[in-house]
Amino acid sequence: MNVKGVLGCARTRHLKFLSELKEFLRFRSVSSQPERAADVKKCASWLARHLQKIGLDSVRVIPTRGNPIVYASWLRAPGRPTLIIYGHYDVLPADPTDAWKTPPFAPTVKEQELYARGAADDKGQLFCHIKALECYLRSGRSLPVNVKCIFEGEEEIGSTHLLPFIARNKKALRADAAVISDTKMPAPGRPALGYAQRGGLRAEIEVTGPPLELHSGTFGGAVLNPVQAACEIVAGLHDEHGRIAIPGFYDNVREWSEGEREYMARTGPSDGTILKDAHVARGWGEHGYSLYERTTIRPAITLNGVVGGHYGPGVKGVIPTSAVVKLSFRLVPDQDPEQIGALFRDYIARKTPPSVKVRVKTFSPVQPALVDRKHPAIRAAALALKKGFGSSPVFLRSGGSIPVVNSFREELGIPTALMGFGLPDDRIHAPNEKFHLPNFYRGIETSIWYMTILAKVLQQRSQQQPMVAAASEWIS
Amino acid sequence: MNVKGVLGCARTRHLKFLSELKEFLRFRSVSSQPERAADVKKCASWLARHLQKIGLDSVRVIPTRGNPIVYASWLRAPGRPTLIIYGHYDVLPADPTDAWKTPPFAPTVKEQELYARGAADDKGQLFCHIKALECYLRSGRSLPVNVKCIFEGEEEIGSTHLLPFIARNKKALRADAAVISDTKMPAPGRPALGYAQRGGLRAEIEVTGPPLELHSGTFGGAVLNPVQAACEIVAGLHDEHGRIAIPGFYDNVREWSEGEREYMARTGPSDGTILKDAHVARGWGEHGYSLYERTTIRPAITLNGVVGGHYGPGVKGVIPTSAVVKLSFRLVPDQDPEQIGALFRDYIARKTPPSVKVRVKTFSPVQPALVDRKHPAIRAAALALKKGFGSSPVFLRSGGSIPVVNSFREELGIPTALMGFGLPDDRIHAPNEKFHLPNFYRGIETSIWYMTILAKVLQQRSQQQPMVAAASEWIS
Repeated sequence: MNVKGVLGCARTRHLKFLSELKEFLRFRSVSSQPERAADVKKCASWLARHLQKIGLDSVRVIPTRGNPIVYASWLRAPGRPTLIIYGHYDVLPADPTDAWKTPPFAPTVKEQELYARGAADDKGQLFCHIKALECYLRSGRSLPVNVKCIFEGEEEIGSTHLLPFIARNKKALRADAAVISDTKMPAPGRPALGYAQRGGLRAEIEVTGPPLELHSGTFGGAVLNPVQAACEIVAGLHDEHGRIAIPGFYDNVREWSEGEREYMARTGPSDGTILKDAHVARGWGEHGYSLYERTTIRPAITLNGVVGGHYGPGVKGVIPTSAVVKLSFRLVPDQDPEQIGALFRDYIARKTPPSVKVRVKTFSPVQPALVDRKHPAIRAAALALKKGFGSSPVFLRSGGSIPVVNSFREELGIPTALMGFGLPDDRIHAPNEKFHLPNFYRGIETSIWYMTILAKVLQQRSQQQPMVAAASEWIS
Repeated sequence: MNVKGVLGCARTRHLKFLSELKEFLRFRSVSSQPERAADVKKCASWLARHLQKIGLDSVRVIPTRGNPIVYASWLRAPGRPTLIIYGHYDVLPADPTDAWKTPPFAPTVKEQELYARGAADDKGQLFCHIKALECYLRSGRSLPVNVKCIFEGEEEIGSTHLLPFIARNKKALRADAAVISDTKMPAPGRPALGYAQRGGLRAEIEVTGPPLELHSGTFGGAVLNPVQAACEIVAGLHDEHGRIAIPGFYDNVREWSEGEREYMARTGPSDGTILKDAHVARGWGEHGYSLYERTTIRPAITLNGVVGGHYGPGVKGVIPTSAVVKLSFRLVPDQDPEQIGALFRDYIARKTPPSVKVRVKTFSPVQPALVDRKHPAIRAAALALKKGFGSSPVFLRSGGSIPVVNSFREELGIPTALMGFGLPDDRIHAPNEKFHLPNFYRGIETSIWYMTILAKVLQQRSQQQPMVAAASEWIS
């Protein structure tokens, strides 16, 4: 295979690839809003047709009880390693939409940036690999490795149906490595490889008071207000040192060696960089840790939203009937989401005053994930990034979660190269999300390099260890 | 004047009066929603036309910078006392509208109850006096007293423009007493006269964090969450004894004598009655006081609403940009709303952590009000209630505020008879508000009695003190 020819194919097709990516971004594939289910389905069909068009085999839109999984493969290189390419085509809601300078689902290029919901998270990054596959298949009608593509539509809501899909298809999904581009690099010329992700758990608390709104004059001072009770419960979640006050919460948090913390201090973002990325002047959180540590090796609770009583324009002198708080846990090795959920529910039950009722829901558990930096597939990813971006990557921990990383390790026994093409100012999950177009094109080249290098590195390794058979598949 | 004839007129017109009240209730005269301004104006015009039709003089719709004041008078009894009749034709919003069993602005009678927003607060109660005036004018073409009617459209939003109107028209509004029916009685057969109202102050706190929503994975644990900060600020407003924790807040709260507290315990609602009215199983609040005391002689802070971040269906893993809390103070003698506002703003400023910003707005100050139970106009009201409802009224304090009561005392030097025809289960300010129809009809008769008795009682008194001249007026 002539890599130069493949790269050449990529370099002459920037405009075409950009216009295809814009088409992909036009779908309002918001997974957390039930009213968008049809848009999610349309997006999945478009993606499947696209994979077919570029020459992949066995393209399928696999229905689940939630959003479909788009699957495709190319297994015509017997004896060569097999790579899983994972990405997600679902996106977060675009609200508040009036904070967007360009419509979130009308992709717009300004200078070197492509603005749209999902531009960086994750449609743009996912598309780098699709375009790399296309260039190989255009240039030489073959790939240097066998490939299994898994593109899901529920990453933003906890990958509920993907994880059982992987467990169910353990055999059909056998592979040697996985690659995911759904993270970020510190700056345009400084690539990175992720090696740790926090786990997570979502929760919702509903505090209920009087069965009907009460006049605040008639009853104010004599009936406990559910908004007040909710605020008091939430306020109790942290102590004055920024630590989470739930008893037992830190029991299983892994302490890292001085060596690891020094490595993190050397390679990771400084407090200043993190504050700049967040556009805030001051940090906050658990005493005794840098901001990079607080967002990676330390757990957190984030309040995602709160609502209760009268909150529109004007005034309404009432004691409301209820208040709802939405929050997310970010968890670290060796915390277990289920166990944290149980501690949380116990804590809330103990802290709820008897005059109100509380309902706690916990959902979308995600295990924290770690990747072995020394695995050959990860070394191959580092080499590919050097080729694509011109310098060796740093290894970074991430504060977020990609639920599937853990499944790949536990169910399939393979490492995941977390090869992020996003930038710190891409505003993922926020209004005016964007993707840096030079990273789109370098991402495609990096993916091209990765397949070639991976084939070589794993081929050498297989002289000691037997290679995974790519063979035929029966996906269900 | 033959009172029997006047009462007879009222008794034969129940159906007609009810149908007119329904017409009045159909207007969506919601004062706190700017989009309802036109409905408020239409309601004011209807009311003015109605006052003209029943035979009052000088009917005017007086524009203000807010909602108009409807004024009318009848001053053809020189040498006789003058009574101000006050009421408000504005109502609270009906939301949540889906909690209503019948549409809030389509008045519906079920058995002895008339359901509609404003049925009891205050259109129905106000209408009792209008119908009493009508019966006098129909039967004898005159009234036993001179009358000045002031019906405002901003009571639910703090009577912003009424209070300066009264100050401005001190001379034109000269009178001997005022009557307001905008409160309640303990039970259908047990009338009451109010003699104290709490004051109030509204406030809004906005806590602002990062300028854009942040990914809760990337930044969770390193950036202070404005929803969390807002909850912590709110949680700090009360101590563990249910007392308000703002320093200096209780400094001017008047302590009442044992005698007064015993009178309250004897005449006022029990804890059980208040809990039943609120539909809750347990009370809450400041230790050492009964629930009646907590809602009348003790101040309170009520959280009216809170909103921040993502609160709709689905999940969104973000650190929000801001949170807004709306609250009301209920104040007692001798607290001053302006001074309480200053203490509150200082307290919030001190309690706000440096990583977020806070904006505090305080508005709609209302002074607490007290009425002299021994004043002849109040004794006349007690006699009228006994005639109308068959038993002597108890004197009750109220937890709410009618801002004008204080103005009548301070600007015009007159007492206000707080003659409430509402019932504890009328659900004012809540969905399914209603007015008990027997109280509507008895309210009309009570008002008829009140004018006759007031004329007699004040006439006797005027042998010692000069009567207020009703004479000509120049309202502006």
